Amino acid sequence: MNAEIIAVGSELLLGQIVNTNARFLSRQLADLGINVFYHTVVGDNPVRLKEAIKVSQERAEFILFTGGLGPTKDDLTKDTIAAQLGKQLVLDEEAMRSIELYFEKTNRVMTENNRKQALVIEGSVILKNDNGMAPGMFLSTEEHKYMLLPGPPSEMEPMFIKYGQEAIAGMFGKQAKIESRVLRFFGIGEAALEAKIEDLIDQQTNPTIAPLASDSEVTLRLTARDDSTNSAQSMIDGVEAEIMARVGEFFYGYDETSLVAELSKLLKEKGMTIAAAESLTGGMFQQELTSLPGASSLFKGGFVCYSNEAKIELVNVNHETIDKYGAVSSECAEELAVNAASLVDADIGISFTGVAGPDELEGKPSGTVYIGIYLKGHPVHSEKLNLGGTRAAIRRRAVKYGCHLIINRLSGTRKR
Amino acid sequence: MNAEIIAVGSELLLGQIVNTNARFLSRQLADLGINVFYHTVVGDNPVRLKEAIKVSQERAEFILFTGGLGPTKDDLTKDTIAAQLGKQLVLDEEAMRSIELYFEKTNRVMTENNRKQALVIEGSVILKNDNGMAPGMFLSTEEHKYMLLPGPPSEMEPMFIKYGQEAIAGMFGKQAKIESRVLRFFGIGEAALEAKIEDLIDQQTNPTIAPLASDSEVTLRLTARDDSTNSAQSMIDGVEAEIMARVGEFFYGYDETSLVAELSKLLKEKGMTIAAAESLTGGMFQQELTSLPGASSLFKGGFVCYSNEAKIELVNVNHETIDKYGAVSSECAEELAVNAASLVDADIGISFTGVAGPDELEGKPSGTVYIGIYLKGHPVHSEKLNLGGTRAAIRRRAVKYGCHLIINRLSGTRKR
Repeated sequence: MNAEIIAVGSELLLGQIVNTNARFLSRQLADLGINVFYHTVVGDNPVRLKEAIKVSQERAEFILFTGGLGPTKDDLTKDTIAAQLGKQLVLDEEAMRSIELYFEKTNRVMTENNRKQALVIEGSVILKNDNGMAPGMFLSTEEHKYMLLPGPPSEMEPMFIKYGQEAIAGMFGKQAKIESRVLRFFGIGEAALEAKIEDLIDQQTNPTIAPLASDSEVTLRLTARDDSTNSAQSMIDGVEAEIMARVGEFFYGYDETSLVAELSKLLKEKGMTIAAAESLTGGMFQQELTSLPGASSLFKGGFVCYSNEAKIELVNVNHETIDKYGAVSSECAEELAVNAASLVDADIGISFTGVAGPDELEGKPSGTVYIGIYLKGHPVHSEKLNLGGTRAAIRRRAVKYGCHLIINRLSGTRKR
Repeated sequence: MNAEIIAVGSELLLGQIVNTNARFLSRQLADLGINVFYHTVVGDNPVRLKEAIKVSQERAEFILFTGGLGPTKDDLTKDTIAAQLGKQLVLDEEAMRSIELYFEKTNRVMTENNRKQALVIEGSVILKNDNGMAPGMFLSTEEHKYMLLPGPPSEMEPMFIKYGQEAIAGMFGKQAKIESRVLRFFGIGEAALEAKIEDLIDQQTNPTIAPLASDSEVTLRLTARDDSTNSAQSMIDGVEAEIMARVGEFFYGYDETSLVAELSKLLKEKGMTIAAAESLTGGMFQQELTSLPGASSLFKGGFVCYSNEAKIELVNVNHETIDKYGAVSSECAEELAVNAASLVDADIGISFTGVAGPDELEGKPSGTVYIGIYLKGHPVHSEKLNLGGTRAAIRRRAVKYGCHLIINRLSGTRKR
């Protein structure tokens, strides 16, 4: 089966927003084994939308629309498709009730044009909107399948995952349940990871294994289709076990998470607190840690010791350490980590010192990074990294490595 | 004139990347008064690309392509368009020399397939690639204009601005030079700003005025077309003066800049240093300040004082201040700002304390923010803000407000 995604909205053609919906749906459809051959963007104009539908009917079997389901005059996706297919719009009572409820809950008066959102194309399966008002639709004709989804990603994405996938799975007959799981890896490149599981990727059609790399991390998205959620999940379990046997040492979490979120979770579980002294990263580690709600239970405070003076005066690093070894050294990193923990009275101290570039520092090239890790009651330890990329990338990667090192040290189940 | 943008690349159809090129070109074309009626994405497949070109020839006068100009077998945009137009590919000597030079400079051996990148469609105007190897092309036939641009945004965007705009301007005859300038505003909403200059926006067709809002900032993009760079720039100067007379107090910078970059520039000019004590923002201000190269001349260090304990022990805030007024108070903000400056021996101290949410704190609702500002030799001052939005948005906006407050305080030319 091949598909085309048509996004409707003049704001896309004016360049005010970028078509992230097409990316989201393309990934999802790839996971389901459906080939996407075209994306189209067309404005809120019925004549041009009709032309786009005609073109798409010639070249695609499954046409997905995003946008144009709202209450204003500009929202004409439903009307145009219905007219093109010779179908009527009918009022969906359940959608109407849920729109009325939405206005009651938010204490606002419903204007008449909102009723328009409860009109659906006759004969279509309704996809509920749990995050907004306009429902989606799924419609089959002899030659084509159509899916209509709302434009805002906050409505469209959950609707597709919760209701759209199931409607699509129905097309495949018995295998009606689709489940996905994302495995996240750090400390291994995409090519190296793929090389270790190449045979699995090649063999697998259900579950599918889709690798993706970004910002020093690699993810594998596993998607299975079967006749029950349980059996689809256990198919994923099987493939996951094979993958973990080969590259499990680099795995750090499932689905929507991050290294700093996993570190935060682990510290909460163990009831431990952490303090930081950041030179290279200028506060990025602490900023990310405190971006998560509830950070106060594990983080009291720390230092941004950008200059040597600040390292000495704020974090009590010995003058001699910097004179003898430089600020970009394992000795300095280790003193910073120990002192940060003791000054803040935390269980763990971490430090970042290095050269973010573009210029070299103390004769050390851009990308030279030392991370100090101190666990109360244990000898302090530091790790030297040589990171590539821009100033921003070096800093981001250093923070990720820092989280990774503490996670490994605390969990003890994985090695590096 | 109406246009269509065709992006060529299977990675777009797989959802691996998002089509930011279409957004960039759409904005640029809107500034030039060219209507974009469709975006299309098609994979690296000659049959389907040919079909997409045919469809586009029926509905657009100006067709812009991005992607598929590289050296590999997948890169087939040029070949397919040439075949469709019945034209030959010919070697462009200048492009060939610049490709050879590129390999010399990077000390790599050129493989034979790289020669392919110097092949261009006969009769086209060559658009130089200053950031990569594959040149772009601009081509006129009786019925259509075609522009071929590379896929990577780092190559495509500068090529379009430096060479593509000029080729397009040529279509308009004498008015061959196009100039743009972006004005950046903070501290005023998009609707309020637009209301103050509505008549200017409505009247203007050359220069055009395009407003855009994102993340508490509003930008106005001014674009003029005239027969010389100088006259286009002076047309922009004229409109800018009118805009500034009305909303100049909210203006903070031109083109690619940010509040933190403007603050950094100002501190360097004045030879001043700054220190920070961050509670609410958890290090975000210091992280952003140090994200800019050369930060060490104006920033030595500071504190992330997330807990009350850290405020007291690291930044010497009086126990009584917190007991009496709370940590989220002007009193605490002011002590933090003064002490940060004196502990680090900096000319300026800034502090951020508040409630990022989702929960309230000390009985104060999420979004309550105090920013303390201390300039050595002047009385300390603080500002209370009530910010809306998510935890992340509140923190980001607080940092922007902090930069804004110091800039206004130091420059003295603008008021709030």
